[in-house]
Amino acid sequence: MFNALTPDILARLREIHGADNVSTARADIELHARDQSHHEAHDAEVVVFAQTAEGIAATLKLANDAHIPVTAWGVGTGLEGAAIPLHGGILLSLERMNRIVEVHADDFQVTVQPGIGHKDLNAQLARTGLFFPPDPGANATVGGMLANNAAGIRTVKYGATKDNVLAMQVALADGRLIRVGSRSVKQSSGYNLLQLIVGSEGTLGIITEATLKLVPVPAHMSAVVASFDTVEAAVETVVAVRGGGLDPAALELVDAAHCRMLRETEGVDLPDKPTLFMEFHAAGRDALEAGVAAVRDICTELGAVAFRATTDAAERKKLWHARHHSYEIMVRSHPGMHFFIMDVAVPISAYPELIGFVEDIKRETGVTAYMIGHAGDGNIHVEFPYADEAEFAHRMTLNRRIVHKALALGGTATGEHGVGLGKAEFMPAEHGDALDVMRTVKQALDPHGILNPGKLFPGE
Amino acid sequence: MFNALTPDILARLREIHGADNVSTARADIELHARDQSHHEAHDAEVVVFAQTAEGIAATLKLANDAHIPVTAWGVGTGLEGAAIPLHGGILLSLERMNRIVEVHADDFQVTVQPGIGHKDLNAQLARTGLFFPPDPGANATVGGMLANNAAGIRTVKYGATKDNVLAMQVALADGRLIRVGSRSVKQSSGYNLLQLIVGSEGTLGIITEATLKLVPVPAHMSAVVASFDTVEAAVETVVAVRGGGLDPAALELVDAAHCRMLRETEGVDLPDKPTLFMEFHAAGRDALEAGVAAVRDICTELGAVAFRATTDAAERKKLWHARHHSYEIMVRSHPGMHFFIMDVAVPISAYPELIGFVEDIKRETGVTAYMIGHAGDGNIHVEFPYADEAEFAHRMTLNRRIVHKALALGGTATGEHGVGLGKAEFMPAEHGDALDVMRTVKQALDPHGILNPGKLFPGE
Repeated sequence: MFNALTPDILARLREIHGADNVSTARADIELHARDQSHHEAHDAEVVVFAQTAEGIAATLKLANDAHIPVTAWGVGTGLEGAAIPLHGGILLSLERMNRIVEVHADDFQVTVQPGIGHKDLNAQLARTGLFFPPDPGANATVGGMLANNAAGIRTVKYGATKDNVLAMQVALADGRLIRVGSRSVKQSSGYNLLQLIVGSEGTLGIITEATLKLVPVPAHMSAVVASFDTVEAAVETVVAVRGGGLDPAALELVDAAHCRMLRETEGVDLPDKPTLFMEFHAAGRDALEAGVAAVRDICTELGAVAFRATTDAAERKKLWHARHHSYEIMVRSHPGMHFFIMDVAVPISAYPELIGFVEDIKRETGVTAYMIGHAGDGNIHVEFPYADEAEFAHRMTLNRRIVHKALALGGTATGEHGVGLGKAEFMPAEHGDALDVMRTVKQALDPHGILNPGKLFPGE
Repeated sequence: MFNALTPDILARLREIHGADNVSTARADIELHARDQSHHEAHDAEVVVFAQTAEGIAATLKLANDAHIPVTAWGVGTGLEGAAIPLHGGILLSLERMNRIVEVHADDFQVTVQPGIGHKDLNAQLARTGLFFPPDPGANATVGGMLANNAAGIRTVKYGATKDNVLAMQVALADGRLIRVGSRSVKQSSGYNLLQLIVGSEGTLGIITEATLKLVPVPAHMSAVVASFDTVEAAVETVVAVRGGGLDPAALELVDAAHCRMLRETEGVDLPDKPTLFMEFHAAGRDALEAGVAAVRDICTELGAVAFRATTDAAERKKLWHARHHSYEIMVRSHPGMHFFIMDVAVPISAYPELIGFVEDIKRETGVTAYMIGHAGDGNIHVEFPYADEAEFAHRMTLNRRIVHKALALGGTATGEHGVGLGKAEFMPAEHGDALDVMRTVKQALDPHGILNPGKLFPGE
């Protein structure tokens, strides 16, 4: 199906990108063979460090004519193997295209190269009083976040990455460079190719530039932590807080098991109860205080067994410490173990049933698992520590049961980690005939299938 | 290219939909031959009033096999001719599929049939304390709003229609019924076919059901009206209000000429100056008052020559009366005239230059024109009264100049009215090679071109 790299093509790649930016060194191949997940490493034949959009387009044309796979790479923080060069070929790293192209401060926009890390971007934007809100945790590149439609804890207020992009330049498989979207925040002009490319995981085109939406850094922030006897009561609180128009900027659930682990290993002051971590942003202090008072009323009415709130910045960081560091605390408290983190999302009304289903599985099998969720979005992560291949294989069978349960509840196989390798098997169940339409689109835009082959679609 | 309707196909349509729902009566044909715009009427051969998604799918399969055009119709409130059956064939009206399918109150969602009017929907939702925020003015159907990606005055806070839909059922040209999107508010699972179909104006598929996002009805609302000496000062205020994190729910500009006309014809108390109409929503009264105070400070600092604000509901309606009724007041004050309303949008930083360009055209040509804009979104409508065909043709040349200016400023040919017939000629200038990609997608999903032919793409 695909051809191997030839010395001629390697020479052409060096002409396009400069010899310094084309590497077949073992170290470079290995550094770009796997992401941060459990997925098996695969070697590319060459790592190309792109410098320009035109160079990317020329590379795609070359690869397309020669039937050589091209897999785009940001910085390797993915969790479903989407950036692993499964079929070898060219690993096209964007990490050296990491500049801000232009800040449009009055438009609340910034145009960037795809390889810039979102944390680096926000550090450079600090002087403008604006920031790019999606935050998946790790310092993922903007290009990777767009390709994967990453999200994170602020999505409940600011949306996922897809909601924070206005325009992109994209290199297509045949070497065309197109512009999609518009710097106008409103556009009803033709097909939404922007959103077709976002989340397509490098299988329809490679993002070479993006104009992002920015929002004002909030003048005032509060933190609230509230624990409940049941997940149901916690979710009722989520619904009431959102229904009250209180517009939370984060609305996170940490399950009882995770709270216990946090207390036992780090002395975090949390009961063994489902606990909500909330954050609110406001332009004025009065509005902030009024919001906290309203949240306190809701939590009290819905039976919170513990409640703490603050509008003080230092105190806020302390209150959120357990949530922000929950992953590393879990890793530290299970020395020698590996971790598999799964990601599903459901309508919020189905959240208690989904969590109950995981609790039942834990009881039935006796496995250790922790749950952390973006409850405001109905998104949950189940974290499974495992010791060896046999345990991993077993956890994967549990993973399948949980994904199918989420689908049965009207949810999705992946809320924010993307499909990549790990979720491809669930695509027929989630999308039905729409998956064939996705294949039709893929075939129309990438007829030789050179763009990130083996991802997103099952059995290919 | 297309075939005419045959008696056999007419008989099949009657089988599928019931004889009562298939009409070749002159009155029905004429009622579905034009929208609310200046675009010329075209007759369909038959009007079909769809009853079910399956009936729509069966109709498309039939039409696809026979190469007969199908144009979907909501309630005919479009402004660019998108629903006019340009090539005859079947006019597929959704107006009898106008039910709420299910309210998911805890999820802040509602599933509806496509033919329901958004005002009717919100009236039925009133008891839930939730509403569907996009409001294009007229009682457009939800299906039409989705097909067109309609917007309106609340977009600056709540987004356009595309931002308020989660899932749809869609009938494809070949008769397949697919589901796209998810009731999970977060989804990173495969290509975003939902957003590919939204805004495609019935050229890629027909929306047979949609699950919409709802938001809490705001407990408190304020209105602010502020006039400025220059458009630049008004736009500086727009930027400052948004930059201050004050999250306006509406941020409208009415130009000096329009203000004068409103005062002279209706006694509206407005100076002949660019005037901002703003609205703010808050969960608590304290937050609302704090917001109004902050807006007052901004307006004063940026040189407002008139400022009025209220948090009282009756007073709020009075303050906004001139904006809400501006179109009908204009029509009343120009008896016997027709009106052409054009729609473009630019990044907000380019808004003063765009408006200055229109002012220059008015000075240069002496034509009457009024400007009303969704300034928070950089969206402007220029309203041209005209008396006859010659004046209309002249106004269309001005329209072209303004659209190309908007494109040169990094904007779009249409912020919210859609492409339809009127904006198709600008698609090559706006999209470049991306337009070919749109054609590729169209060809892949509708190879016989039966879905709403003659729209969106130029010269077809």
